[in-house]
Amino acid sequence: MDKIERFGVSMKAELLQAFDNRIREKGYATRSEAIRDIIRDYLVEGEWEDQSGEVVGTVTIVYDHGTHELSDALTDIQHSNHRAIICATHVHLDEHNCLETVVIRGSSKEIRSIAERLIATRGVKHGKLMCTTTGRRIS
Amino acid sequence: MDKIERFGVSMKAELLQAFDNRIREKGYATRSEAIRDIIRDYLVEGEWEDQSGEVVGTVTIVYDHGTHELSDALTDIQHSNHRAIICATHVHLDEHNCLETVVIRGSSKEIRSIAERLIATRGVKHGKLMCTTTGRRIS
Amino acid sequence: MDKIERFGVSMKAELLQAFDNRIREKGYATRSEAIRDIIRDYLVEGEWEDQSGEVVGTVTIVYDHGTHELSDALTDIQHSNHRAIICATHVHLDEHNCLETVVIRGSSKEIRSIAERLIATRGVKHGKLMCTTTGRRIS
Amino acid sequence: MDKIERFGVSMKAELLQAFDNRIREKGYATRSEAIRDIIRDYLVEGEWEDQSGEVVGTVTIVYDHGTHELSDALTDIQHSNHRAIICATHVHLDEHNCLETVVIRGSSKEIRSIAERLIATRGVKHGKLMCTTTGRRIS
Repeated sequence: MDKIERFGVSMKAELLQAFDNRIREKGYATRSEAIRDIIRDYLVEGEWEDQSGEVVGTVTIVYDHGTHELSDALTDIQHSNHRAIICATHVHLDEHNCLETVVIRGSSKEIRSIAERLIATRGVKHGKLMCTTTGRRIS
Repeated sequence: MDKIERFGVSMKAELLQAFDNRIREKGYATRSEAIRDIIRDYLVEGEWEDQSGEVVGTVTIVYDHGTHELSDALTDIQHSNHRAIICATHVHLDEHNCLETVVIRGSSKEIRSIAERLIATRGVKHGKLMCTTTGRRIS
Repeated sequence: MDKIERFGVSMKAELLQAFDNRIREKGYATRSEAIRDIIRDYLVEGEWEDQSGEVVGTVTIVYDHGTHELSDALTDIQHSNHRAIICATHVHLDEHNCLETVVIRGSSKEIRSIAERLIATRGVKHGKLMCTTTGRRIS
Repeated sequence: MDKIERFGVSMKAELLQAFDNRIREKGYATRSEAIRDIIRDYLVEGEWEDQSGEVVGTVTIVYDHGTHELSDALTDIQHSNHRAIICATHVHLDEHNCLETVVIRGSSKEIRSIAERLIATRGVKHGKLMCTTTGRRIS
């Protein structure tokens, strides 16, 4: 059973009011939940700065599947990194455009390097890496 | 057949040298490809600022699947937005932690609102939205 | 006298421990102070999304003062926006390079537009806008 | 005299059209100037990743000057880092709120650490670091 701790936070009534308005808009049920989320995000940033630990990233790329040899190139990069790449999901956006999300696990350096290779592949129209966590160090 | 245009870019030799070093590191085969990528990213930003067009977003969330009623809550949000949500991929990171990537299509405002609801759900440890494109306006 | 409110936040002991480590590194004296800061940053983001209110931005540009007509061009942009621009500070980085920080007050749209003109001026090597607040709505 | 190089970039007519529209909005006079700016920004990012070189940062903080001992605390931090801190500009936003921009030069690590201490000082309402360059390695 996880131990829960409780501590007090003090702030001006006005600041708290503004915070309450903003988190209501975002859909949070309680202040604690919003604060926990902000704290976790703050910690995930720290996990990515720390080169030694294991983190998780999602790369999303959009490309035209008709581009010559593009699918093969993307598949090659993924296969040569099969230990780090957990899975890929493919979406057909229209007759030409595809979107692929690739989930990668490893050191922040390794994930960035695989992401850069996927994004730099000729014919990929847009690509970005989203940095997240294995969840192990974030409760 | 798409029409290709070619234009000249001039810069100091020193700046070009620094650029060449940086794109080699990132894995680009040619300057044109690197510059096209940077330009496309710049345009996707514009698509997201423009509230009227259609864009695509990927939300990645990490959560503990053992959290009471969390999976149900996430499924409910996704079902009530089934027209915008294209698909979701689920990864089992370990016995407790799951990662889910959800691909959403719609106006930037609609996507942000669905993403905020998913991320604000109690028990989601980390969540982020990655803003991308349908590829239609980006060639 | 400002009214202070106090409320409780609960989280797993492990998450709190990780947060405490991170804020100690960043130099925070108390949890409350770190949480207030994170909350304020969250609210300033909201102020910039809201087009109607007044915000403050700082533009930093780096340029070579020897570039023909550059100083005049930058001065012209600043003068034609003198009501919004509060002040500019000039730093001589070396014989060639100058840094200038320009403090601008107005709607987020107006500030962005002035910043884009300064940054787009030929000869400016690097420029960025930092989005902050008048402090009026943030206590 | 600096050597200027010229090289060709090719892209689909449609992509080039979209780029031209976007840079016109931002106020760029020529494509070359826009591309040079995007490239420089890309290189400044690299300078900040490289821990060994010298970079420049601007920290902007907003605070209520009436907060007990705040001005003294900020001055102390600045004095104990006087070699790295080039200058500070102070703006009176209203009777209570002040804005200060501090220009700092050093390694990326050193600048981040000074910025974090300034931002974490009790009573600072909002603070951010803007990462820029000495201009020496960016022509």
